[in-house]
Amino acid sequence: MNILVCNVGSTSLKYQLFDSDFAVLARGGAERVGTEKSVFYVTENGEKQFTSLPLPTHLEAIEAMLRALGGKTPDCVAFKVVHARGVTGTQYLTDEVLSAMEAFNTVAPAHNPPYLAAIRLFRKAMPGVPLIGAFETAFHADLPKEASLYSIPISVSRKYDIHRYGFHGASHEYLSRFAAERLGKGESKIISCHLGGSGSICAVKNGKSVDTSMGLSLQCGVMHNNRCGDIDPYVIFYLAKDGGMTLDEIQTMLETKSGFLGMTDGLSGDVRDVEKAAKEGNEDAETALKSYAYSIRKYVGAYAAAMGGVDAIVFGGGIGTGSAAVRALALSGLSFIGIELDPDKNRAGCEDISKDGSRVRIFLTETNEERIVAEKAAALLGQ
Amino acid sequence: MNILVCNVGSTSLKYQLFDSDFAVLARGGAERVGTEKSVFYVTENGEKQFTSLPLPTHLEAIEAMLRALGGKTPDCVAFKVVHARGVTGTQYLTDEVLSAMEAFNTVAPAHNPPYLAAIRLFRKAMPGVPLIGAFETAFHADLPKEASLYSIPISVSRKYDIHRYGFHGASHEYLSRFAAERLGKGESKIISCHLGGSGSICAVKNGKSVDTSMGLSLQCGVMHNNRCGDIDPYVIFYLAKDGGMTLDEIQTMLETKSGFLGMTDGLSGDVRDVEKAAKEGNEDAETALKSYAYSIRKYVGAYAAAMGGVDAIVFGGGIGTGSAAVRALALSGLSFIGIELDPDKNRAGCEDISKDGSRVRIFLTETNEERIVAEKAAALLGQ
Repeated sequence: MNILVCNVGSTSLKYQLFDSDFAVLARGGAERVGTEKSVFYVTENGEKQFTSLPLPTHLEAIEAMLRALGGKTPDCVAFKVVHARGVTGTQYLTDEVLSAMEAFNTVAPAHNPPYLAAIRLFRKAMPGVPLIGAFETAFHADLPKEASLYSIPISVSRKYDIHRYGFHGASHEYLSRFAAERLGKGESKIISCHLGGSGSICAVKNGKSVDTSMGLSLQCGVMHNNRCGDIDPYVIFYLAKDGGMTLDEIQTMLETKSGFLGMTDGLSGDVRDVEKAAKEGNEDAETALKSYAYSIRKYVGAYAAAMGGVDAIVFGGGIGTGSAAVRALALSGLSFIGIELDPDKNRAGCEDISKDGSRVRIFLTETNEERIVAEKAAALLGQ
Repeated sequence: MNILVCNVGSTSLKYQLFDSDFAVLARGGAERVGTEKSVFYVTENGEKQFTSLPLPTHLEAIEAMLRALGGKTPDCVAFKVVHARGVTGTQYLTDEVLSAMEAFNTVAPAHNPPYLAAIRLFRKAMPGVPLIGAFETAFHADLPKEASLYSIPISVSRKYDIHRYGFHGASHEYLSRFAAERLGKGESKIISCHLGGSGSICAVKNGKSVDTSMGLSLQCGVMHNNRCGDIDPYVIFYLAKDGGMTLDEIQTMLETKSGFLGMTDGLSGDVRDVEKAAKEGNEDAETALKSYAYSIRKYVGAYAAAMGGVDAIVFGGGIGTGSAAVRALALSGLSFIGIELDPDKNRAGCEDISKDGSRVRIFLTETNEERIVAEKAAALLGQ
């Protein structure tokens, strides 16, 4: 049984083909789809082999991928889908499920519409091959009510399916499993930090998500490259009533001009640029970095309190593995709960970056969402 | 020097007259102003002496208060005012300051308009007597940038004065001072929990607020009697776009039909009723209580992390002093940071409810915002 896991971005496609033992048989992708500089690549021995290729839409990118796979026909295509109203877990992507995704376009505007479009192209390009979606919300589907419900009228929460959903489920599942294996004990309290262009924190108790920083939408929790993190909702009423902005303008601002990009006055949404600017004395960049690290630190404290303690913290994602500065800043001053970072190991990017004797272990690792998605798809196919 | 501190509610007035040593010379108030059952009272030896009196508006209530004060003429009237754009601290309530309050009516809709109306009546009833406002935001005016700024475009934050302001400043100042005195050491890390119909948590390091749970508005942080606490702002976009609600309807819902009242499906905004219903098996009431306590617990963890530890927790406000159940639930599972409640002392409502040997002291006390307001007004008058 071969499982093709595809990750669709607005101008990109990435794929990995897994066999039934979850070994990777092939991987590759397309970049700058829809532009004149579109390229296709296959990855061999960790190296991307690029070919210039006209890819006016994702359909041509899918066709190029199928040619590259040659005889290795997939038994299904699996996607890390984001959000649907009333649907979670791992699902065959039927019309019903796609409709449920459409019903949440407003709360996942950057994610659901491009995924829906891509899935429809896969249906066209690969008729007869089952398409499977592993929802990012699945790992958080059993949050305790006190972590899940908002303090709005319960009738409204029920009528409109409004509650904390949480995202990055595959990554948090991978990262927390990684940490739990290294702790090597049955019960565990782990705080998983998936920090990338999009980031979230998750409290994982005995393998289950018990709280997470994203909510109904992906525009909350710690801030993101160009999307806001937690804000006072009255920012919206105030800008609409006294700032003369339309709801659409405010939403666009929160989704595309906020986060690191917004806090640095448009400088960059990339933490590497922000770190560089901060070092060069840019005060807004320094504040953005401190704000980001500070919000991570507060989530770590809050989730330790939520679980009654913490055994390990694990960092994944581009910033989580890439930025020693963010990790150090985020975990500073936490020795009172036994969290002690080893500065040298942290700078070197070791797997275990905790000080010898730190009661709480601190890990970092590349996350592997595709592996989790492949496992979920295999389980559904095998039923 | 006599300072009259007045607290104005939508249908009530409370006053206390302080002398220059902050001894209380007189106290009293009016209830059900504007109704047919209006009453005026003076408080003597802790007992309210009621008189039925027609009080069609606050103006008649103010006049009744002045008659009750007799010869004890105040040198100023001081108010615990809430919110103003670009103005904080303790201020003479000039037209400019009132305009700055009006400019934030949208973000403090339940608080600013009634206060503005009342202050204008005081001007009429007591011409020539200075009116002073001690802003609730003053105690939080020096938050570090990383605790204060939201991750929206910095240009928008600056243009519209959008950042975390925080409220209940007089109460947090009183409560944290109370705890610091009992700790009896120079440096202190205190978490102040002002929990009433309106509630907030504050991290106080060496006497200064370094973070607090309310923000630009008073509709965030822990939930309130009928106002929401922290929610995902996309609840607003979703209800506006897919729920067919107007912005005004959503704002009214968040301000008057949320919090305990909303989570219990309209049962009650009063925690005493909610506790009773939960005991009788009402699941929504139980969830509301658990959600409330859980959010307090997360703030305690977050603020301990923010300060690099915690020496004391102090509870004030009607729920803070009145509900042993909320205190116990909020602080459960926190022994890993040295927070251990003594169940008997907690039920008895002792001043120090921490277990013998608890590293973190836990206090409860009636807050005294009026005393702080009187001190601030005296300082301004004495300048």
